[in-house]
Amino acid sequence: VKAKARRFKIIVAYDGGPFAGWQSQLHRKTVQDALEASLRSSTGERVSVQGAGRTDTGVHALAQCAHFELATSRLTAETLSKALNAGLPNSIRILRCVTVRQSFHARFSARGKTYRYRIWNAEVQPPLEVGRSWHVRDPIEVREAAQTLALFRGKHDFASFSANPGQSRATTVRTVANARLVKKGSLLTMHIEGDGFLYKMARMIVGAVMLHADGKLTREQIVRELEKPGARIHRLVAPAAGLYLVRVRY
Amino acid sequence: VKAKARRFKIIVAYDGGPFAGWQSQLHRKTVQDALEASLRSSTGERVSVQGAGRTDTGVHALAQCAHFELATSRLTAETLSKALNAGLPNSIRILRCVTVRQSFHARFSARGKTYRYRIWNAEVQPPLEVGRSWHVRDPIEVREAAQTLALFRGKHDFASFSANPGQSRATTVRTVANARLVKKGSLLTMHIEGDGFLYKMARMIVGAVMLHADGKLTREQIVRELEKPGARIHRLVAPAAGLYLVRVRY
Repeated sequence: VKAKARRFKIIVAYDGGPFAGWQSQLHRKTVQDALEASLRSSTGERVSVQGAGRTDTGVHALAQCAHFELATSRLTAETLSKALNAGLPNSIRILRCVTVRQSFHARFSARGKTYRYRIWNAEVQPPLEVGRSWHVRDPIEVREAAQTLALFRGKHDFASFSANPGQSRATTVRTVANARLVKKGSLLTMHIEGDGFLYKMARMIVGAVMLHADGKLTREQIVRELEKPGARIHRLVAPAAGLYLVRVRY
Repeated sequence: VKAKARRFKIIVAYDGGPFAGWQSQLHRKTVQDALEASLRSSTGERVSVQGAGRTDTGVHALAQCAHFELATSRLTAETLSKALNAGLPNSIRILRCVTVRQSFHARFSARGKTYRYRIWNAEVQPPLEVGRSWHVRDPIEVREAAQTLALFRGKHDFASFSANPGQSRATTVRTVANARLVKKGSLLTMHIEGDGFLYKMARMIVGAVMLHADGKLTREQIVRELEKPGARIHRLVAPAAGLYLVRVRY
């Protein structure tokens, strides 16, 4: 009797610093490759791990989600989780591992994601913040920035706030359920929650807020671009190190 | 007319990870060496930087204090601070630089220090905590640990809680003004404040608390050693990565 294949869902945290992003690449260290290597040594099976989304080089994850299928292994989810962690560098950790129904798909079943973006706004960035926040020296008007960020809330065409707007024929309309800014001392944190994010969209929203703070983009331009993309406006991708994938919602 | 030498006090933060501690060493990267190299390139003067205390390899500092003297440079403290930061790796930052009276000495004028020790107490340590906390898997009884830690408060002979008790003929009596434990989720933080710390004393206090939690050291043994050192008790130096020099008091 052939054992039935089982599908697993994992919640994964990683420090983006040492990796060339999530997505498998030749000759570069990626999170997906590390997970697949550890799966192979734990189970003997060569399987593909499908993430909820690709994170770029340097982007951190507090709770990325992924799925994979095992054809023959009989390890329990808990044992598998421990075996995977034992084989992974400590810059990647499996936080949770459960079996799921065959129809579950980490990417296609996802109903939304939450990102966090951290900015250290002071003359000096503390050493322990390096690689974990964007260091911005010029004082940011917090109320102003919060209001600009709020413009992105709701259902809009985010084509102008994505790195490859013309590459896909799929819709560039997304709904941002929440976008808010919290200040605590020198640390500004932007929380952005949406039903989906285009390529580099989270970092380009942050970039637009900072371009506005810098006088290089008006609120009217932002509003217009969200209604009818196409104008040649200043665009900025905020540095990867400040971005954290916080949660994937199903 | 020969310019009068000026003495400077600096507050320095550093990520202990990349350094072989504070103290200058041949062929190893240390914080003191990096500061002296940056001072030399900023001012042309070859000077020695005196820290309030030596931190070991991997120990972090949120606000270490140090002093040095410049014989000829006429840079203002503010310009000097910026020049030093420009020449330093971003794992070391000057947070403050002021001129002080000639009698000020970073080490001998210090009236006390505050350390923080972070323990991540859960099955899995999040990747962004690696190098920044001690990962302890076995559940720690927080009330118990807090009570054990409190034993170290007050004036005691800390000879048994230091790595080189017999090396110096100086007194091993110190006063710990405060020692308390705070729990927030999986993170346990010990705050230890004293008029002075023997070599590895902060990490050995943490080690003793954990040895007690592990059943390898009784409270009676700790109390006895603090009164009259000398018994052969279990000793443990907690890992460097969890330790932070928080403040030097003058």
